[in-house]
Amino acid sequence: MRYELYYQPSIQGRGEFIRLPLEDAGADYVDVARDPNFGRPGIMKFLEDPSLGRPPFAPPFLKAGKLVISQTANILQFLGPRLNLVPKNEPSRLWAHQLQLTIADWLHEAHDTHHPLGNALYYEEQTTEAKKRAAIFTANRMPKFLGYFERILKHNSKSGDFILDKKVSYVDLSLFQMIEGLRYAFPGTMAKLEPQHPLLIALHDRVMARPRIAAYLSSSRRLAFNQQGIFRRYTELEEEQKQE
Amino acid sequence: MRYELYYQPSIQGRGEFIRLPLEDAGADYVDVARDPNFGRPGIMKFLEDPSLGRPPFAPPFLKAGKLVISQTANILQFLGPRLNLVPKNEPSRLWAHQLQLTIADWLHEAHDTHHPLGNALYYEEQTTEAKKRAAIFTANRMPKFLGYFERILKHNSKSGDFILDKKVSYVDLSLFQMIEGLRYAFPGTMAKLEPQHPLLIALHDRVMARPRIAAYLSSSRRLAFNQQGIFRRYTELEEEQKQE
Repeated sequence: MRYELYYQPSIQGRGEFIRLPLEDAGADYVDVARDPNFGRPGIMKFLEDPSLGRPPFAPPFLKAGKLVISQTANILQFLGPRLNLVPKNEPSRLWAHQLQLTIADWLHEAHDTHHPLGNALYYEEQTTEAKKRAAIFTANRMPKFLGYFERILKHNSKSGDFILDKKVSYVDLSLFQMIEGLRYAFPGTMAKLEPQHPLLIALHDRVMARPRIAAYLSSSRRLAFNQQGIFRRYTELEEEQKQE
Repeated sequence: MRYELYYQPSIQGRGEFIRLPLEDAGADYVDVARDPNFGRPGIMKFLEDPSLGRPPFAPPFLKAGKLVISQTANILQFLGPRLNLVPKNEPSRLWAHQLQLTIADWLHEAHDTHHPLGNALYYEEQTTEAKKRAAIFTANRMPKFLGYFERILKHNSKSGDFILDKKVSYVDLSLFQMIEGLRYAFPGTMAKLEPQHPLLIALHDRVMARPRIAAYLSSSRRLAFNQQGIFRRYTELEEEQKQE
């Protein structure tokens, strides 16, 4: 089965959480908006098609045969067993999905540091509010989320190197991406927090060293972080914290 | 099986999205924090228990035998087939879950109208920002979400009265709760928008008339909306829009 991923072509964004497991599994997929030869209708045209009975609310979405699946965590729980990136038993799948939804909340908060008033306004129209929100995110929320995942890794450290167990899962790939994104957006905060979360950083490094992930990261398929994505580097959003 | 719901005892909040399907199905459950006879440790004590290998990040969470499940949408996808509130086939379950995650996003945005800088500050410390965010939510985001669900109901109107089909699902119960909450928080905006979304309002009324839901709503188990919940009525957050 060739999977078709529909997402914006110029940012990592939420799409990256789907690209990573597809890449790690060596799956057959096409990143539709970035493939000049693919000839599918654009994302917006697709979403507005009135004949679509089960339309996504927003990208990313995945076509798998006749199925159209959206919401990042939902796509991942669909792909997980098919790509052998989650255990098959229901308790482990529920647990993986819960972790993924917690990562989604974390990502949402990371986004809101630069858009606390929402996407209807440009960053430049909400810089003052963004500074306040970012100060809270870096001081309170980043330590809380990092600490939560570190605690789980510590509890499970005797049974395996990954967040669920001995085998890598899509949740590990997402945690890698969170660390990468937070390093890009808040390098000073991460430099300070990383030493307190050694197991999470070791997990990040373990994911990055996986052969297919390493090949992907050094390929042109991996987009660079930039100022249109979810993770953005605005130096003034880290400075606010220092002033407190 | 007696389900144990762990959630804050004084607000509807996210817990209400779990209470509604349990009530509609006539399930055997206990709302732990509200039951004086239950004698379980408090929610925070539970969350901080170091022996817990798969800890929730935050309430609500559900105990079902040995399983502890958290994240509202995850709890609902677990309960759905057990309470006969979602079709059994995978495409329908993925679709229901996608809709639920979209409702979660919508709820998140409704919350952020009064806490755009996050929960570390009181509402009174972020009223100015809240007014800006609420103006965007009522003008742009509420019509977008309402229109999305109305579109789906319209597309499916020949095959059934509910969002998935002929039978009620947990998604319908959540849509009922969203309408209720938005009416409480933004009565003026809803009065204006409801006539444009007749199928969604009819769905709300159909859910409200279900015997077990009607009995629940008129019981003391249904908490009233209040200013500690996710949906809050601050009149100044609707006035902002009128001034534009």
